[in-house]
Amino acid sequence: MLRTHTCWELWKDNIWEEVKLCGWVSNWRDHGWIIFIDLRDRYGLTQIVFDPEDDKTSWEKADKFRSEYVIQIKWKVRSRPEWQENKNLETWKIEVIVNKAKMLSKSKTPPFEIDEFTKANEEIRLKHRYLDLRRKPVLDNVLFRSKFLNFTRNWFSQKDFLEVQTPIFTVSSPEWARDYLIPSRINPGKFYALPQAPQQYKQLLMVGSIDKYFQVAPCFRDEDPRADRHACEFYQIDCEMSFVDQKDIFEVVESYMADVVEALTSKTILWWKFHSMTYDEAMETYGSDKPDLRYDMELVDVMDIFEKSTNEIFSGIAKYKEQNRIKALKVTNWDNLFSKTQMKNFEKYVRQYGAQGLGYFQMKEDWLKWPLNKFFTEEDLNEIISRTDLKVWDVVFFWAWEKNTVLNYMGRFRIHLESLIGLTNKDILAFCWITDFPMFSESEIDWSIDFEHNPFSMPKWWLSAFENKDLLSIKWVQYDLSCNWFEVLSGSIRNHDIETLVKAFEMVWRTEEEVKEKFWAMYEAFQYWVPPHGGFAIGMDRFMMILKDEDNIREIYAFPKSGKAQDTMMNAPSIVDKAQLDELHIEVKEEDLN
Amino acid sequence: MLRTHTCWELWKDNIWEEVKLCGWVSNWRDHGWIIFIDLRDRYGLTQIVFDPEDDKTSWEKADKFRSEYVIQIKWKVRSRPEWQENKNLETWKIEVIVNKAKMLSKSKTPPFEIDEFTKANEEIRLKHRYLDLRRKPVLDNVLFRSKFLNFTRNWFSQKDFLEVQTPIFTVSSPEWARDYLIPSRINPGKFYALPQAPQQYKQLLMVGSIDKYFQVAPCFRDEDPRADRHACEFYQIDCEMSFVDQKDIFEVVESYMADVVEALTSKTILWWKFHSMTYDEAMETYGSDKPDLRYDMELVDVMDIFEKSTNEIFSGIAKYKEQNRIKALKVTNWDNLFSKTQMKNFEKYVRQYGAQGLGYFQMKEDWLKWPLNKFFTEEDLNEIISRTDLKVWDVVFFWAWEKNTVLNYMGRFRIHLESLIGLTNKDILAFCWITDFPMFSESEIDWSIDFEHNPFSMPKWWLSAFENKDLLSIKWVQYDLSCNWFEVLSGSIRNHDIETLVKAFEMVWRTEEEVKEKFWAMYEAFQYWVPPHGGFAIGMDRFMMILKDEDNIREIYAFPKSGKAQDTMMNAPSIVDKAQLDELHIEVKEEDLN
Repeated sequence: MLRTHTCWELWKDNIWEEVKLCGWVSNWRDHGWIIFIDLRDRYGLTQIVFDPEDDKTSWEKADKFRSEYVIQIKWKVRSRPEWQENKNLETWKIEVIVNKAKMLSKSKTPPFEIDEFTKANEEIRLKHRYLDLRRKPVLDNVLFRSKFLNFTRNWFSQKDFLEVQTPIFTVSSPEWARDYLIPSRINPGKFYALPQAPQQYKQLLMVGSIDKYFQVAPCFRDEDPRADRHACEFYQIDCEMSFVDQKDIFEVVESYMADVVEALTSKTILWWKFHSMTYDEAMETYGSDKPDLRYDMELVDVMDIFEKSTNEIFSGIAKYKEQNRIKALKVTNWDNLFSKTQMKNFEKYVRQYGAQGLGYFQMKEDWLKWPLNKFFTEEDLNEIISRTDLKVWDVVFFWAWEKNTVLNYMGRFRIHLESLIGLTNKDILAFCWITDFPMFSESEIDWSIDFEHNPFSMPKWWLSAFENKDLLSIKWVQYDLSCNWFEVLSGSIRNHDIETLVKAFEMVWRTEEEVKEKFWAMYEAFQYWVPPHGGFAIGMDRFMMILKDEDNIREIYAFPKSGKAQDTMMNAPSIVDKAQLDELHIEVKEEDLN
Repeated sequence: MLRTHTCWELWKDNIWEEVKLCGWVSNWRDHGWIIFIDLRDRYGLTQIVFDPEDDKTSWEKADKFRSEYVIQIKWKVRSRPEWQENKNLETWKIEVIVNKAKMLSKSKTPPFEIDEFTKANEEIRLKHRYLDLRRKPVLDNVLFRSKFLNFTRNWFSQKDFLEVQTPIFTVSSPEWARDYLIPSRINPGKFYALPQAPQQYKQLLMVGSIDKYFQVAPCFRDEDPRADRHACEFYQIDCEMSFVDQKDIFEVVESYMADVVEALTSKTILWWKFHSMTYDEAMETYGSDKPDLRYDMELVDVMDIFEKSTNEIFSGIAKYKEQNRIKALKVTNWDNLFSKTQMKNFEKYVRQYGAQGLGYFQMKEDWLKWPLNKFFTEEDLNEIISRTDLKVWDVVFFWAWEKNTVLNYMGRFRIHLESLIGLTNKDILAFCWITDFPMFSESEIDWSIDFEHNPFSMPKWWLSAFENKDLLSIKWVQYDLSCNWFEVLSGSIRNHDIETLVKAFEMVWRTEEEVKEKFWAMYEAFQYWVPPHGGFAIGMDRFMMILKDEDNIREIYAFPKSGKAQDTMMNAPSIVDKAQLDELHIEVKEEDLN
């Protein structure tokens, strides 16, 4: 062993012990004759003292040490004189004096400073990630991920979930996102696909009687990278259970969330908000299916009041209650918050989403002089004030238009306003279940109707759901868990009944043949006594971003891909030898390279 | 919740409780009026009693239940009458009577019987693995794998190893086995490779100051499948440590092996054999670098005796001590063991390896009449007897030829003999470290010399190793752990010194430029204060085969690939749409498809 202790272990108890330490020189200081070094490893720092009176040779070596050198030192632990005590070091009560020192490896000048607050840009950091990893914030994330994985796996194991490693080489199912493909050498002209998620496998496990499954599953989707989505591979906490209903699954998840947050963070769950609302409720109230519930600012429906307006545009929009919406959004204490310029910017903001404009006004003492006065009776104005609970200096925004536009963009505007005001507290987690997602959606291009999500969920009321001829109003037993404006979990009770499954396809003009062809393992398996089942997947990386207050998903990985889906450190992807491609029975389309 | 308990939980304590159970009908019996069912789930069995006097409707339904139906039942637990107690059931002291029963899903006739001793062939079983999983031996392996993973990860985590998930999308390094490649959509003409092992990443983690790393790492090599090697993907317990020497690593591994064997198996480790021998010793003594030490049968060197023989072939071979070997292999109590036909078969066996023949004879009381008598003096014969410790009826085999041929094939013959005699005990694990592997080997084709394994290990004595001009005798600080004729672990102390690394390449006429080009992340990283480090990887699947006495690696997986690297259940690999290939800038070479 090159060391007897780490740079974290030594303490008052070790005084006068003989020790060997290894690590990186983190801070070199020459105090007159004596040289001080903070020796650093993964665990922490220990002060090392080179005194020529202790050992001249070591002291001479130390004179040449510089930041980041890897060294090994040997001798005794001693108490640090009170006047030198350094409160910043965890092991500040001791230091180690040296009678033998050794440089373990050499170096050239590094491309950036290894300290907490480096100014190096992300490109340089990723290219030399092995150096970046030595920086405390990066190392902290690696430590956190390791702890998180261990805690999560133990949690599910202790609750009798079996961990099953599902195949990484599987079959292409281009229904959803784009697949990554792997040409097969042994089976010419054929391709494996990497799994977008172990969805089918976990359902087959249920058929196989493994009634509680989990896995920290690697998933692969060939999508364009963005800040909250990692390129190439990502991980989800994947889970499935037999003989359960939605309530059972919610209990498991809520219990896990409570435990993981308590064990690994200092954050607080807003339990009184950890409830469930339907997709429709979430859209109407927050304009989002992943609302941030750390603050209120609800969208208030004022259609019925505007219908009575003398303004024909307002009353015209308000007449079509199904298709349109008029929503009010209140911000308290305007005067302290926004400038005239900001007000102009709000208008710009909504215009980019196609809005004609944004109605707004401030509640002043002389509210009867409002611009809206001419369109409403005093009674109606009073109704608006009371419904949105307006106080003096509050401001209220209105938006009237086609339903989906109003909801989506009032939702975004709510987030935008919040980001300006800063209402959110990072230490608070506001979870909320969103349930009853629509089964089908309508294409914006040709108004055709197709599955909104994957087709394996159970419709509410099973087969009888399809008695409803308004397809867009049929709901799945499908749920998301939202947290602070992120979707952290998605799942459903599955459609285990082959008749209902086929019927669901037929509702959108697809055939049993297609089900058979595209999902033939599931189709076949579901012929043989399949238990009712359901499950979920937690977007692990995104969840960790929330727990660690990181805005960039790359910081959650030890070796992340860049925004261009490249590993600049390893130089992946790369051009390969033609001989390799020949063996795989493929060739590159040269015309694509220009 | 569709059930209140599993089919394992109910016991005397639950008598007269109202319960709901779900599961598969595993055994349907009609005893006169009353119908008995063993209800099965992942956990076990519970006997269910349908009595028309309890509830006629349920009883009528039960009359139509058959094996494997998924049902739900409800009512009361009662004590089982003594005379009906069934010792085969774990919950044999109780049974459940029914006042409500429900069939949860329908089925068609399954392709094979779901029982422990199915006669279905592997092809059918794998195609319907979701049914096969319900069989106890298969389910047991899934359970074992889950426990094994959990135990292993906790073991390393508790010892302060950090789990790091290294990238699955990386760069091709065709130096070793064949890579699996993934065409990049965003980077036309470029390919990712799946990692054959996280070797480079784990070494980069060491540079990044993460001094204790582990991962149950998915690895990918495009090799032809065989019984102890899974197609496409496999898993290794991957580990790396900084500031250690070989002894430290052995301590970690031995402690892990002891703990995992004790916690999860009823096997016994032969601790007195858990020692270390060099590669050369292993080859000379057992003709294998993964010797099975559960039995002795050592190869005994008799070169010096044969050198004195009057037979010129013997003495001629014995003269070249470096190039040749003459080895003796003793089997005790011949008479009880082999027939004349077997003796003939032995000759055939060795001939397939190019041997001219196999000398052998039996120790009888009139040993002076041996066929060898004419070539040896009585004194030399006595020496052979004493060196191989021959007793009456023992048989001894001799083989004389070129060194590597003799060692390799005497090693194989040793295993072959054992398989006939059956000396091994499956409940015993004989671990042994094999150390000091040769650094370079000579090509059989053109006698060129190149790295025997990956070039990242440290040569013994660092740079000064290369003062030895006999390249083939230079050794790495590299080690394997063998167990019962399997290699279960491989590792080394790494070459962290860039000068020594480059020199190693130069020794076999390769250049610093090549190191830079092929391993550029490592080459670059090793410029910056890299700590001394080393590690290992445990072949997890193979190790589990030993622990579970499985001869076929596919039984260790929930969803294995077939011998042709196919997933017949999912139909992978498959032909994909041309549009998908277009997006990836590749096309299939049509001429390869015929």
